[in-house]
Amino acid sequence: MNLSSVTWTDVADSETDLALVPVGSTEQHGPHAPLGTDALLAEAIAEAGADRFDGDPVRSPTIPIGVAEEHRHFPGTMWVSPETFRRYVREAVGSLASHGFDRVVLVNGHGGNVDALREVTGTISRHDDAYAVSFTWFDAIDADDMGHGGPLETALLRYLFPELVRENRIEDAREGAAASWGEWVSRTNLAHDSAEFSENGVVGDPAAGDAERGRELFDESVAALVGLLEAVATRDVSEPDRRG
Amino acid sequence: MNLSSVTWTDVADSETDLALVPVGSTEQHGPHAPLGTDALLAEAIAEAGADRFDGDPVRSPTIPIGVAEEHRHFPGTMWVSPETFRRYVREAVGSLASHGFDRVVLVNGHGGNVDALREVTGTISRHDDAYAVSFTWFDAIDADDMGHGGPLETALLRYLFPELVRENRIEDAREGAAASWGEWVSRTNLAHDSAEFSENGVVGDPAAGDAERGRELFDESVAALVGLLEAVATRDVSEPDRRG
Amino acid sequence: MNLSSVTWTDVADSETDLALVPVGSTEQHGPHAPLGTDALLAEAIAEAGADRFDGDPVRSPTIPIGVAEEHRHFPGTMWVSPETFRRYVREAVGSLASHGFDRVVLVNGHGGNVDALREVTGTISRHDDAYAVSFTWFDAIDADDMGHGGPLETALLRYLFPELVRENRIEDAREGAAASWGEWVSRTNLAHDSAEFSENGVVGDPAAGDAERGRELFDESVAALVGLLEAVATRDVSEPDRRG
Amino acid sequence: MNLSSVTWTDVADSETDLALVPVGSTEQHGPHAPLGTDALLAEAIAEAGADRFDGDPVRSPTIPIGVAEEHRHFPGTMWVSPETFRRYVREAVGSLASHGFDRVVLVNGHGGNVDALREVTGTISRHDDAYAVSFTWFDAIDADDMGHGGPLETALLRYLFPELVRENRIEDAREGAAASWGEWVSRTNLAHDSAEFSENGVVGDPAAGDAERGRELFDESVAALVGLLEAVATRDVSEPDRRG
Amino acid sequence: MNLSSVTWTDVADSETDLALVPVGSTEQHGPHAPLGTDALLAEAIAEAGADRFDGDPVRSPTIPIGVAEEHRHFPGTMWVSPETFRRYVREAVGSLASHGFDRVVLVNGHGGNVDALREVTGTISRHDDAYAVSFTWFDAIDADDMGHGGPLETALLRYLFPELVRENRIEDAREGAAASWGEWVSRTNLAHDSAEFSENGVVGDPAAGDAERGRELFDESVAALVGLLEAVATRDVSEPDRRG
Amino acid sequence: MNLSSVTWTDVADSETDLALVPVGSTEQHGPHAPLGTDALLAEAIAEAGADRFDGDPVRSPTIPIGVAEEHRHFPGTMWVSPETFRRYVREAVGSLASHGFDRVVLVNGHGGNVDALREVTGTISRHDDAYAVSFTWFDAIDADDMGHGGPLETALLRYLFPELVRENRIEDAREGAAASWGEWVSRTNLAHDSAEFSENGVVGDPAAGDAERGRELFDESVAALVGLLEAVATRDVSEPDRRG
Repeated sequence: MNLSSVTWTDVADSETDLALVPVGSTEQHGPHAPLGTDALLAEAIAEAGADRFDGDPVRSPTIPIGVAEEHRHFPGTMWVSPETFRRYVREAVGSLASHGFDRVVLVNGHGGNVDALREVTGTISRHDDAYAVSFTWFDAIDADDMGHGGPLETALLRYLFPELVRENRIEDAREGAAASWGEWVSRTNLAHDSAEFSENGVVGDPAAGDAERGRELFDESVAALVGLLEAVATRDVSEPDRRG
Repeated sequence: MNLSSVTWTDVADSETDLALVPVGSTEQHGPHAPLGTDALLAEAIAEAGADRFDGDPVRSPTIPIGVAEEHRHFPGTMWVSPETFRRYVREAVGSLASHGFDRVVLVNGHGGNVDALREVTGTISRHDDAYAVSFTWFDAIDADDMGHGGPLETALLRYLFPELVRENRIEDAREGAAASWGEWVSRTNLAHDSAEFSENGVVGDPAAGDAERGRELFDESVAALVGLLEAVATRDVSEPDRRG
Repeated sequence: MNLSSVTWTDVADSETDLALVPVGSTEQHGPHAPLGTDALLAEAIAEAGADRFDGDPVRSPTIPIGVAEEHRHFPGTMWVSPETFRRYVREAVGSLASHGFDRVVLVNGHGGNVDALREVTGTISRHDDAYAVSFTWFDAIDADDMGHGGPLETALLRYLFPELVRENRIEDAREGAAASWGEWVSRTNLAHDSAEFSENGVVGDPAAGDAERGRELFDESVAALVGLLEAVATRDVSEPDRRG
Repeated sequence: MNLSSVTWTDVADSETDLALVPVGSTEQHGPHAPLGTDALLAEAIAEAGADRFDGDPVRSPTIPIGVAEEHRHFPGTMWVSPETFRRYVREAVGSLASHGFDRVVLVNGHGGNVDALREVTGTISRHDDAYAVSFTWFDAIDADDMGHGGPLETALLRYLFPELVRENRIEDAREGAAASWGEWVSRTNLAHDSAEFSENGVVGDPAAGDAERGRELFDESVAALVGLLEAVATRDVSEPDRRG
Repeated sequence: MNLSSVTWTDVADSETDLALVPVGSTEQHGPHAPLGTDALLAEAIAEAGADRFDGDPVRSPTIPIGVAEEHRHFPGTMWVSPETFRRYVREAVGSLASHGFDRVVLVNGHGGNVDALREVTGTISRHDDAYAVSFTWFDAIDADDMGHGGPLETALLRYLFPELVRENRIEDAREGAAASWGEWVSRTNLAHDSAEFSENGVVGDPAAGDAERGRELFDESVAALVGLLEAVATRDVSEPDRRG
Repeated sequence: MNLSSVTWTDVADSETDLALVPVGSTEQHGPHAPLGTDALLAEAIAEAGADRFDGDPVRSPTIPIGVAEEHRHFPGTMWVSPETFRRYVREAVGSLASHGFDRVVLVNGHGGNVDALREVTGTISRHDDAYAVSFTWFDAIDADDMGHGGPLETALLRYLFPELVRENRIEDAREGAAASWGEWVSRTNLAHDSAEFSENGVVGDPAAGDAERGRELFDESVAALVGLLEAVATRDVSEPDRRG
């Protein structure tokens, strides 16, 4: 049930306590992929996951601007501070919980949101009237070449939104890309911003993922999300006993 | 230029300093109109206004959840606190300004956002590196029967998103509607929540606006927005002199 | 019962649950009217309203500094941020409510406070242990020529505090005045500060309101306030039912 | 120059950089003295100090509600949190400083405000565009029997506002009074609220200060304030050198 | 019971509801005494007090950085803002209270922390699930020559940590010392920073306290703390009745 | 240079711009290991790293209480909120930077602090006058059996603080331990608190790390830290260019 499309009377008839909140970002994804990549993919996966799940969870609109100051040197990148992002998410989840949708999965498409979502779902689950957990599609699948605007995201875009991939800039994208995220010494990342290590904002090889791989990644992501929804729907979310 | 669809290199090639940020809400609009009404209409008007304006301003994704606690008694309504909303808007605008888009029009579709947007655009314009102003479509046109889920919004939905209007519930919508917003004594509104005065969340008669009126309202709104964009693009935004 | 003058034992004997909190501002009102205009008028109307109301509500001291940064270019104007103002009002009201004065009318004399008071009274009424509502005298009467330091305020000052009106500067005041508040395009105000549109801070014609009109305006304002107090005293302030 | 009474043009003609901000409280002062005691005395002393000082400093309206939760068990006591109080004071002082009044003396009448004023004047002086210092009249004079609603305050009220002292309740006030403030073990006060140690809110003997002593205390307080104003007006407020 | 050394199972076996939280500062103490003076002394006194008290209260680790911006001109001085310090203390105390240690004594070694600790212990005791009080060793003993890096602190260091006193710099310390804290006019301190009145950060004569006096001061401080712990352990911490 | 032990004059003679801030936690580490484990290990590694580094960086006292609410069900665990922790760290680092120590390594011993430290070091590096980076010893070494109170931490304790390991409880510790951290579905952790998956708070086998392994782990950790210090000392920390 897409909250944006239904009426309050439709919602009142719902019997679920499960909600999905897609969370994206509007930020540089190299010269070949759109700024909206993270929001578009999070929304597509959340929509498909909700559809394939046996039940009819509510789905909120996608939160389109997240924690992305690390890409601030690339034009068009938008962001809010982590604290503001957490407040926005927490209160939005709280409003869902007030209607009884108190098992909430944040469906996330952006690496920069992960820490903030882990923190805020902990805060919500401990202190508010809801249980919340964050799902990030690229952490939930069996792939180790995520990058940024790299093979995975580009593959998914080619499958889902091919018109948004600038294929004629793929070579440029490859040439200015970094091999991996960050600048590492003693297994510690010294860089705070992507412009410290990537010329054009890309990490990884965007040519390495075609639409077919995109389809596979999408199916794997959606299946993982459906599995998580099943676990969340039936989880005992009561507080554990104090020890001693 | 829709930021969600373009790449950072496209943005880098832009020569405008003008940005539009659509702002909506996800909240009850009666039994006949979708929760996403305000976001959908704000986005449509912003998109058309940006297109018709001579120039190519950037358009950010729509902020979908706003100040709507006044509808909290109706299932599915989402909200954040005014303070969190202002912080989210202020920081998002700040990120646009960091790229040179420092004349920003918030294109708003929700009455509950008006005060918060007036405040935050003042704060931004006085203290940050941008000039910002808020445009609310129904305050910019020549109509006095706005209501809530009433003739104007329903007319616009019928024109733009007819599949989202539940025509078979229009009679229910009329019957449970309030004639006007609020409970007034001494020209002062005593009600803080819409459930205090409207049985089903509707204010005004949703049957009173057909798709044709919707088309007229849309054109009038878009024309008003284009006029505003022209004024903002050329406005002297330097600070006035101190007096005395 | 003026809280500043009575003792706690007097308050303990009180049987009312109704309180008035006058709210003003200290800000420019043109070359002819004092910076304290808004506080003086709010206090006078609150005092008279409390006296004429059948019952003996408590009246707090007047909050003298409000949301007035829009007049920052004029010497002597004082202000706090809207957020600080809301916090100050909310906590002050909370302290009244702790003693059982949990129906609170903010009696306001300043346009710049209106949005913040609407927000904070909503917050209080929804989340704290009190019902609060904001009354702004010039919004409660039948007059459309409010201005700023204009006919209405000058008339009231002439009636209540004639020694504070610099009659010898009225011509100067008229000459540097703006005809109306703001700079409007597409029914949208592009100005955030009064110095953007008024040379001397005045809006409207201060010569257009004499002491006799001041007396009428005062009586009308006080009568409106008394009517509101009656409504607040008897209002059902329980939360409405959730729908669906 | 009382800001409430003058116009912005009067302020513009001022040549001083010195401002006084009276700070009071609205809180229980026993069965015999008014809740407004602290605000009334602070304002009277500030007014006289400004008058007797050779120069014409501006005087803001009195901040009437302060840090007084320690009296919360006594009806009518109003308060805000220390953090909100500091914010209100800091921003109000900042607005004065924006007009060039950047040497600011907070003239305080309430013990509960002292810590918060010390903190906020330090913050202002270190980080904002002003030098600020807090003056508390009863700490500035040669007397060690301050109490609360006790000999000093009652004497001052008898001199300045005799109509506000309920003389017929003085015996009651004495009988329920505490001998000293707090409950002390190891020179440490274990009490946080006045109701923990005073039956009726009074500390000290209100009969021990007549109007004549009030006159002396007033003159001593005002003289101390004038001395402070002279020091502040001429103080080198540049930041000291870093050592080393 | 030193929380840093014991296990959670040890804590679970504890039967006390009493906790000590040592609070220090890392700040200049002249050319002869270490930056850690306040933390070292607070910890030593807290440890001895807990040991000598009949019972086995828990002792948290020492909070090492406090409110010390007043020494910012001296290299190595560390600080946080008073607000952040209060939040850190309040939440740390709250975590102790969650385990049943809800009578908490803050054992403080730094004058700059005193106001903030008084405020935060009041806030905790009124609004949280614990009673808290602040003990500052030099306010709890019979001595009036505290200074800063002066006779008392230097004596205690000589007794407890003689290796940390640079005896060869004592003459330098004396020569650059101030006689007393602050710059006073009308019994009001005009200085906010120690560099305004002390050349080398010292106040008082560090030669005036030998190790023997240090032993006496230590014993007196510890005895005072033990007395306070006894009072806190048995205190009725229920809220007093509302009056009237 | 241990800031706690030196004087401000010693610090003034320093020529480094490098600082270490050890960060720990006070939280359950099973029935066999002390609550102070994380602070003790962070401090030991920071001290040795500073000693072995060629240069003489300053070392601040250890921040002893961190982000540990996930262990709240185990007695004695202390914590502050992530937001308060970040503020405390940010401001403490800011005070170091004010003295020229503007390359700051947070030496962390607690997994729960990692996200918050990553965020705050990004904030500091982007917006304040310092470059900061977080080093967590167990992320910097070649080992994949970290656990909690498990083989690595127990081994280090046995090497550095053998008296604090309760060897007689090791069997209990093993029996109640979880095999791994969290409850995972779709590679997503559903648990927010350690009590959801560990009976006694332990994760991993504390018998699997003896003192000899502890020595190796310590040396590896210290070497990693030294390598990081070298990189930080010489890093170009100027902001990268904006793209486009």
